[in-house]
Order: sequence, then structure tokens, then C-alpha cells
Amino acid sequence: MKTFLSLITSVLLAISANTQASEAENYIKYRQAMMKAIGGHMGAASQIVRGKVAADGDLLMHALALAELNRNLTRLFPEGSDFGETKAKEEIWDQWAKFEQAAADAKQATADFAAAAGGGEPSQIANAFKAVGKSCKGCHKDFRQKDD
Amino acid sequence: MKTFLSLITSVLLAISANTQASEAENYIKYRQAMMKAIGGHMGAASQIVRGKVAADGDLLMHALALAELNRNLTRLFPEGSDFGETKAKEEIWDQWAKFEQAAADAKQATADFAAAAGGGEPSQIANAFKAVGKSCKGCHKDFRQKDD
Repeated sequence: MKTFLSLITSVLLAISANTQASEAENYIKYRQAMMKAIGGHMGAASQIVRGKVAADGDLLMHALALAELNRNLTRLFPEGSDFGETKAKEEIWDQWAKFEQAAADAKQATADFAAAAGGGEPSQIANAFKAVGKSCKGCHKDFRQKDD
Repeated sequence: MKTFLSLITSVLLAISANTQASEAENYIKYRQAMMKAIGGHMGAASQIVRGKVAADGDLLMHALALAELNRNLTRLFPEGSDFGETKAKEEIWDQWAKFEQAAADAKQATADFAAAAGGGEPSQIANAFKAVGKSCKGCHKDFRQKDD
């Protein structure tokens, strides 16, 4: 009987671990899609800010999307979502407070950029955009594995 | 004198062609960034619509960004932006009216999706999302080279 119960327990634990794993995988996919969107908007905004394309009307759209995408980054990194096809480093969870600060910086920088894009001077816009790039790099440096 | 003038003309034409080429390159980069953002928002929205992540609050944001990004796709394909690192096919410019229609479909589908995401029933949202995917594929099938 005891063996039977422990078998049941093992099976239930395995199912639960499996569910957690696939839940984590879903979040990994979701955050990678979010990061891809961020990368796209950043690349597009960069072309506008640097005067490479005359798409000024788009700048606010990109800036607002960036602010929304960066509004709550930490929730994209639930504990346990640190395996498989991810470049997220263990340091995220080991140094959670520091990670939260980096995410807060990105939130602030993108909010400032959206405000600037909404009617600031070109130099303000350029500076605010630079600060967004800095906040991306700051977080990636500590918490994201380098590309191969 | 005639030779000198024709040399000058050649140089001016070369400069002009070069300017146009780099302008086209800038648009190629810009539209690739736009498409990357679209891909990111689509991937993220897909995870939500399929119930893979509980990020319902994000759905409208992704849908609105998709609607904005698809508002005026044709302007991202100025004549002459058909070289180098692009998967855009010649058919875009050869069959411009058909391309415009495909872009109009994407605009409509993403606008409908944004409307559904703003308060529709889950089944409406799922159908509207499916229509967006269909409009992406419809355009890519005719006008975008396949990935290697």
C-alpha cells in the first residue's frame, strides 16, 4: 500500500513538474516575442531618430509601444523559466532586486521617451532614445547571455 | 568640352543614384524593423489568444500596435527598394495594385482584431486573430521570398 501511494505521489509530482515546465516554456516564448517586438520598435525608432527615414508620424507609435512593452518586464520572468531555448541568465533570479531595478530603469526610460516623442525637441527626443538604448544594454549585460 | 560635360553628368547621375540607393536602403531597414515588431506582437498575441499565458491585459496593446504597424504598409516599399538584403519580391512593384490590396487586407484585419480585442467575445477575438495571420500569409506568399 505504501509503495502504491508513493507511486501515485511520484506520478502526481511528475505531472505537476511537467505542467510547471510547460507553463514556464509558454512564458519563455511569450517574453521572447515581447523582446522581438521591442527590438523591432527600437530598430524602427532608431531609423527615425537618426533622420534616416521620414516617418516622423510613426515615432510616437513606436515610443508608446516601447513604453507599454516595458511596463512590467519582471512578470515575464517567473521563477523556473530558466531552461531550454532561453538566453536568460540565472543571475535574474539570484539577484532579483537588481533585476527589478534594471526593469524599472527600462520602464522609466521608455516612459520618458514616449513623453519626448509626444512633443519634445529633437535633441530631447534623441537623448531620451539614447537612454532607452542604455537601459536595454544595461539589463542585457548582466542578465542575458551573449549571442553565440 | 562635350566629354567634360558628359563626365560631369555621369558623376551627378552616379551621386544621385547613390543617394537614392542609400535612401532605399534606409527604407529597407525601416520596414524590416517594422516587420520584426509585427512578428513580435503576433507571436505574443498568439500566446495569449491560445491561452498559453495569462496576459489578457496585454492583448489590446499588441492588437493596437499591430493595427498601427499595418496602417500604411505600402509606403514602406518605395520604388527602388528592391535590392540587397531584402526578401521583397519584384512582384510588389510589377503588381502594385494587387500588393496594395494585400496591404489593405492587412490593415482591415488588424483593425478588426484591435476592435475585437477591445471587448469582443473570446471566439470573436480568436477569429479576428486568425484573419490577421491569414492576411500576413496571403501577402507573404505572393510578395516575399521564402526563407532559405
